[in-house]
Amino acid sequence: MDTSSLTEHICTKGSFLCVGIDPVLERLPAHFVADSQGLLKFCTAIVDATADHCVAFKPNTAFFEAFGVAGWGALSELVAYIKKKHPSHLIIADAKRGDIGNTAKAYAKAFFEAMSCDAITLSPYMGVETLIPYLEYPNKFAIVLALTSNQGAFDFQWNSEEKETHLVERVIAKTQTLPNSERIMYVVGATQNSQLKYLRSLAPDSFFLMPGIGAQGGSLSEAYAAAKNASVGVLVNSSRGIIYASSGPDFAEAAQKEAAALHEQMRTLLYI
Amino acid sequence: MDTSSLTEHICTKGSFLCVGIDPVLERLPAHFVADSQGLLKFCTAIVDATADHCVAFKPNTAFFEAFGVAGWGALSELVAYIKKKHPSHLIIADAKRGDIGNTAKAYAKAFFEAMSCDAITLSPYMGVETLIPYLEYPNKFAIVLALTSNQGAFDFQWNSEEKETHLVERVIAKTQTLPNSERIMYVVGATQNSQLKYLRSLAPDSFFLMPGIGAQGGSLSEAYAAAKNASVGVLVNSSRGIIYASSGPDFAEAAQKEAAALHEQMRTLLYI
Repeated sequence: MDTSSLTEHICTKGSFLCVGIDPVLERLPAHFVADSQGLLKFCTAIVDATADHCVAFKPNTAFFEAFGVAGWGALSELVAYIKKKHPSHLIIADAKRGDIGNTAKAYAKAFFEAMSCDAITLSPYMGVETLIPYLEYPNKFAIVLALTSNQGAFDFQWNSEEKETHLVERVIAKTQTLPNSERIMYVVGATQNSQLKYLRSLAPDSFFLMPGIGAQGGSLSEAYAAAKNASVGVLVNSSRGIIYASSGPDFAEAAQKEAAALHEQMRTLLYI
Repeated sequence: MDTSSLTEHICTKGSFLCVGIDPVLERLPAHFVADSQGLLKFCTAIVDATADHCVAFKPNTAFFEAFGVAGWGALSELVAYIKKKHPSHLIIADAKRGDIGNTAKAYAKAFFEAMSCDAITLSPYMGVETLIPYLEYPNKFAIVLALTSNQGAFDFQWNSEEKETHLVERVIAKTQTLPNSERIMYVVGATQNSQLKYLRSLAPDSFFLMPGIGAQGGSLSEAYAAAKNASVGVLVNSSRGIIYASSGPDFAEAAQKEAAALHEQMRTLLYI
């Protein structure tokens, strides 16, 4: 998928929702067996319940790796399931990898070839050379951590105490000059209200993947207003608010309802 | 393992060598089948050939993930093999993970529990809160990327053009104040000669894991002289120079010979 087909998908559907799949075993409804297969069943049920309301799914690798080999198997099965049942949805591996040369190539192979994900989240700490192997894949996205939604974003990414260039400013500036930079998206927290417009000015054409609405306190309408561009340019992620909407046997219906409510808000924002 | 037992192990053995296991399929000797089982056989042969000369093994997760589920299985088998056959060796998962709260907990579970690694490499980009779950494990190490050995280190970690606080200075200062900070090591490139003494002054008691000797141009004796502390405080990594010492059927003997040569140099440095 490229940016223009993503924009088209968003506009047709009236949704820029990404459903984050971060399944913590302890929070699964009681009727699921507490193993990797239980996890997989929960995830596929969430996917089916919310697919009509979102344009992207973002499974987080950590929660699968915690189950060892069987967990990696469940992640692969989940990606294959989404690809087969919901082929128009973007699949983002929330993996936050970041390493040099041959290692980056191997990670790209892992997520873009061995699994058929469409995008991967990446940490830029080791420099922009670490992103290049991912950008060589047509129709795939490299989603670079910029200003994240957590409190720790102020440790290094944005140091408000000092009048120095912030790390996130350097990250965006340097990555924007890379070959195939149209395949880059940025993770920008929806909680980072005071910086959103400024960050958008640094990367006017790139998609922002925005976590942080709901539990973390970010506002959907404010984030959208500050971060949108001419191609929409925004994917808003919701994880816990959707996947744990109910811990009972009605978890899928509850997830569907939450996703539908966000869809409705997004439709309004898009068609104003 | 804690710092003092690592120091003791180093001094007894006369080696602070870490063998990096970064197996690129294309570089495996021709008699190995080009699949995850071939990869595993190559890796266990390297481990057995070099164990007498090193105190740590550092498998890089990317090269296993590139094989999908079977690759993750091979990584788990490799870690279990090292644990069983060479129980006194430190096993470092070179995974460069970095994420918040529950996600970090899940990664810690993946590498410290589902696999029994002793340490994991971590990216600090998202802030120091992302390191805390790992530091709660006694006898495990969180190895934080500080100033890496690649050219990209100068993109963000160290910006020599400007008279500002460098990112790596912030990273070390902030992480040194964390609870259980004695369980932190830092990745510091052996290629970063002009900064080694200074970085050591910022973290006088921490172990440095140092890649970059050999192919990347770092000098073992210079790196050791600049970075050592009262507890040795240095693990020097070599990957390509050892594991690809020969591409023929004698690859294990050649790897052994390279590791033995580094061991001999290290013994001399330690016992001067």
